[in-house]
Amino acid sequence: MKRRDFVKSLGAGSLAVGAAVTGAPAVHAEEKIKWKMVTTWPKNFPGLGTGANDLADLITEMSGGRLEVKVYGANELVGALEIFDAVSRGTAEMGHGAAYYWKGKSEAAQFFAAVPFGLTAQEMNGWLYSGGGMELWTEVYAEFGLVPTAAGNTGVQMGGWFNKEINKVTDLEGLKMRIPGLGGEVLKRAGGTPVLLPGGEIFPSLQSGAIDATEWVGPYNDMAFGLYKAAKYYYYPGWHEPGTTLECFVNKKALEALPKDLQSIVLNAARVANANMLAEYTARNNAALETLVTEHKVDLRQYPDEVMKKLKELSDEVVSELAAKDPMSGKVFASFRKFRDQAIAWHNVSERAYLNQRSL
Amino acid sequence: MKRRDFVKSLGAGSLAVGAAVTGAPAVHAEEKIKWKMVTTWPKNFPGLGTGANDLADLITEMSGGRLEVKVYGANELVGALEIFDAVSRGTAEMGHGAAYYWKGKSEAAQFFAAVPFGLTAQEMNGWLYSGGGMELWTEVYAEFGLVPTAAGNTGVQMGGWFNKEINKVTDLEGLKMRIPGLGGEVLKRAGGTPVLLPGGEIFPSLQSGAIDATEWVGPYNDMAFGLYKAAKYYYYPGWHEPGTTLECFVNKKALEALPKDLQSIVLNAARVANANMLAEYTARNNAALETLVTEHKVDLRQYPDEVMKKLKELSDEVVSELAAKDPMSGKVFASFRKFRDQAIAWHNVSERAYLNQRSL
Repeated sequence: MKRRDFVKSLGAGSLAVGAAVTGAPAVHAEEKIKWKMVTTWPKNFPGLGTGANDLADLITEMSGGRLEVKVYGANELVGALEIFDAVSRGTAEMGHGAAYYWKGKSEAAQFFAAVPFGLTAQEMNGWLYSGGGMELWTEVYAEFGLVPTAAGNTGVQMGGWFNKEINKVTDLEGLKMRIPGLGGEVLKRAGGTPVLLPGGEIFPSLQSGAIDATEWVGPYNDMAFGLYKAAKYYYYPGWHEPGTTLECFVNKKALEALPKDLQSIVLNAARVANANMLAEYTARNNAALETLVTEHKVDLRQYPDEVMKKLKELSDEVVSELAAKDPMSGKVFASFRKFRDQAIAWHNVSERAYLNQRSL
Repeated sequence: MKRRDFVKSLGAGSLAVGAAVTGAPAVHAEEKIKWKMVTTWPKNFPGLGTGANDLADLITEMSGGRLEVKVYGANELVGALEIFDAVSRGTAEMGHGAAYYWKGKSEAAQFFAAVPFGLTAQEMNGWLYSGGGMELWTEVYAEFGLVPTAAGNTGVQMGGWFNKEINKVTDLEGLKMRIPGLGGEVLKRAGGTPVLLPGGEIFPSLQSGAIDATEWVGPYNDMAFGLYKAAKYYYYPGWHEPGTTLECFVNKKALEALPKDLQSIVLNAARVANANMLAEYTARNNAALETLVTEHKVDLRQYPDEVMKKLKELSDEVVSELAAKDPMSGKVFASFRKFRDQAIAWHNVSERAYLNQRSL
């Protein structure tokens, strides 16, 4: 969807919804507006929480303070996983999270966060901005009165921290690993036991042996959690989250009540925050990896090809079953799959070929 | 550089430069301001020219029309390669081009566009936004009264169109190839003859045999030029332009004369345009490659490893010599090289490892 067409369509609806239908007061350019942004992250959490702050600051700054956005960390105003409902009913005007948290609301939402063996960050943005993805995401969230958009990306994540070597598929059997979402379902089919744990409980659980392994994000965040002190091997790559998209969603009525320039600022600020977060992860992961390897002597290991082939086979199964759950999931998957097939063909001769030959 | 710190520092200078020192009138939020953007691209040229239009539209839209930007194609107001001087002296307020065009002004500028065997799009953005690159670019352009920023990216380009196979390094000897900049210098050292030709002359020159080979951009733009009708082999990857950054630069005094919110809108609109262009190239290249291969039966070939190793060796030579030309080039290269070394290490375990294992 062209961003400007979207803003135009909102503009037209704005008069009807903002003034005539619901009777909400029209907002004039001169007024100071205050919005709340609720998030799934601990306040100021590096990368993700600071990304939400960045988005709020961008809106405040580009609007010259006409629209001031205040950020609330998880549990400050509502619980981490209650933000979707809170913004849907208008308790807050905006939310910052990741779409795979809302699979209980809509299975199709998961395609807009991370899919095992799915799209990288660059490919996700290509699909969303220029490949039909945004139109579908908008359709999925419309029934909840929400307007979604991408607002960050971690890039390819790491595979995870292990205390045993993973040399063959059977090494995953019986493994208790902290890994959520579709990736967890894939591990289960490989014979492992996926465990759900919030960020703060990962380190003690790994240290006590309550879990055998964990994934988290990448060197930048993993080093901050001290995970290298509790596990021996750091496996790559993060097949289960190859370019996780963080999201911002806005209460549709609140957005439509804004003047057009502020609507455009809100949606474009999210595009800036999306690019800024990926740049930050790219730079910080670079530096953190060097520290992990040279100072903390972390044992970096690549998943063996045989293991990855099996995980890919199981991932395709899991994703196909997801697509069969309801018509909307099927519709999103058809678009996603077509884009992925073309992206693989194109990146085989561009990004992938280049990265390989640069390292000869 | 934190974008907000930059805007703050501009804000402080704004009073001094905009009002006190030069006597230029302060701009009030209520006034309608009209700016000119001159570009190096033919008006509406797909990807590059439309990217400049996108940037202008974003500024106009987010400012609610308070700052209206009109785009001029190459030679409409000034010649394609005159835009740097034109914006420097204030004939136009903004320009849209690529930094390697200005090596006659500053050798160091070339690091901010494309370097053979250098950074991909994601890595360039990491370096610029979060790795110290923007601060250096700002320093390089400051002496010309310009504020630069990234405003687009093509992603990894293609290697080029050939009518003979490239099986070994000696196949490049005597080859007359349209390839500009640092890549051209590398070809020269490999025994070839780099030729400079504007876009419009490439197709006829290739068809008549005046040149033996050419690079251009990638499937999306190359297909539009019909290059597949004049050459047999399409080689990849584009080692000479692995993630070409397009730029926008603004006359510093004009920027400082704006209210702070409009300054922020101008610089952040460029970040949006940067992301939008890469998304467009990613999506369009995907689709165009499929058409080239299935409908036009293009013979896709990968450069042999032996050829790439030699080209990388020659590229390192050329780039090191560039870095030795003046202190500023040396300073930029030191930052660029450090980031590249870390990015290669990190992407070996993330992007590269993932792209390889996804395609098993």
